[in-house]
Amino acid sequence: MVTDPQQACFEAGIKFGSLYHQFAGTPVSPDSADSLERAIADAIENQPFCESVAVDIDETALAEAVDDHGYVELTGRFMEVRMRIEYEDVVVRTEMAMADGYPLMRLVSVE
Amino acid sequence: MVTDPQQACFEAGIKFGSLYHQFAGTPVSPDSADSLERAIADAIENQPFCESVAVDIDETALAEAVDDHGYVELTGRFMEVRMRIEYEDVVVRTEMAMADGYPLMRLVSVE
Amino acid sequence: MVTDPQQACFEAGIKFGSLYHQFAGTPVSPDSADSLERAIADAIENQPFCESVAVDIDETALAEAVDDHGYVELTGRFMEVRMRIEYEDVVVRTEMAMADGYPLMRLVSVE
Amino acid sequence: MVTDPQQACFEAGIKFGSLYHQFAGTPVSPDSADSLERAIADAIENQPFCESVAVDIDETALAEAVDDHGYVELTGRFMEVRMRIEYEDVVVRTEMAMADGYPLMRLVSVE
Repeated sequence: MVTDPQQACFEAGIKFGSLYHQFAGTPVSPDSADSLERAIADAIENQPFCESVAVDIDETALAEAVDDHGYVELTGRFMEVRMRIEYEDVVVRTEMAMADGYPLMRLVSVE
Repeated sequence: MVTDPQQACFEAGIKFGSLYHQFAGTPVSPDSADSLERAIADAIENQPFCESVAVDIDETALAEAVDDHGYVELTGRFMEVRMRIEYEDVVVRTEMAMADGYPLMRLVSVE
Repeated sequence: MVTDPQQACFEAGIKFGSLYHQFAGTPVSPDSADSLERAIADAIENQPFCESVAVDIDETALAEAVDDHGYVELTGRFMEVRMRIEYEDVVVRTEMAMADGYPLMRLVSVE
Repeated sequence: MVTDPQQACFEAGIKFGSLYHQFAGTPVSPDSADSLERAIADAIENQPFCESVAVDIDETALAEAVDDHGYVELTGRFMEVRMRIEYEDVVVRTEMAMADGYPLMRLVSVE
């Protein structure tokens, strides 16, 4: 009733929702962006069927946005994410990037 | 390249990951379970393509688990969730419930 | 070495940090603001020494800020919070409100 | 009306509540514990008056607790935290560790 490609896409969605809502709100500055990128990727790669996660926090955008205290809360406008999910024989590639002011999570390919 | 049913399943996954990682860790007691159930459902129903969310927090399990302070942190072992996602002409039904001690999120049907 | 008023202020701070970082990022719209206000207050009141929490989400500000999907992620700019903490004989009143574009958490009185 | 030591203790509490409720629920395994420790410390050190944060995730406890998927959700039972807060002339030392099965956040000294 549910196909492997559908299941693979469901798993991909879970990882994106998890990543975003676990880490959005984290205090982040240009100096702490590197360790946060790595921890986010390592954390989400723990989840089932998640083969790789790459997180890129935009330090230039952070530097322009920081308040008087030198940091901001992480939101989708400051990061891009790419993931590869493997479920049975299906490989799903996904990414999150800003589109029209909204952090758009999308399926790039299902193979 | 990506079909509507695949996209619908991706959207369903996003909602589950969001729900879980936004609200896991919330202090909850038998007395506050009702308002939390409702707020979780209302919050996630805001997301695109999410037609309905039902959250059932198990007050009996909470009552048995509460510490000396009368509450616990919300985890998957205390809640069941059902969602209906609609994307184009596709309806996806999903649920989360405990299976082998792990809060399993699964696709019930894709139609 | 640590006085009761100091301990009471520490407890007050814990509640504010908990509230903010648990719920920031929640999808919220004018229609779902009420249930979220109530759930936040009920959840944090579970914590030790927390006698009362009042949360006011600004529905007018939400309505102006919502994206094409009709919701935003909750941040400090959309809510005001007041709490009363009681530890031994000490009563601490605190509030969070925007100040210079930053959600400022502050001690109102320690008595 | 509010003394500097009281304000310093309030700031210390905010950091603990933030740390716990931002990162509780993060998927963590023995292999990803190091990057998470570092990211948590770097993130919270961004906050005002927070001079240093040390996070120790117990990899032995993680290894015993991991499920079939090789990871658990981070909770207080797996980590110890120490922080130094400086506000005006006041130095506050705090720590979080398990006590009676509950992750106890406490003031160690206010000087």
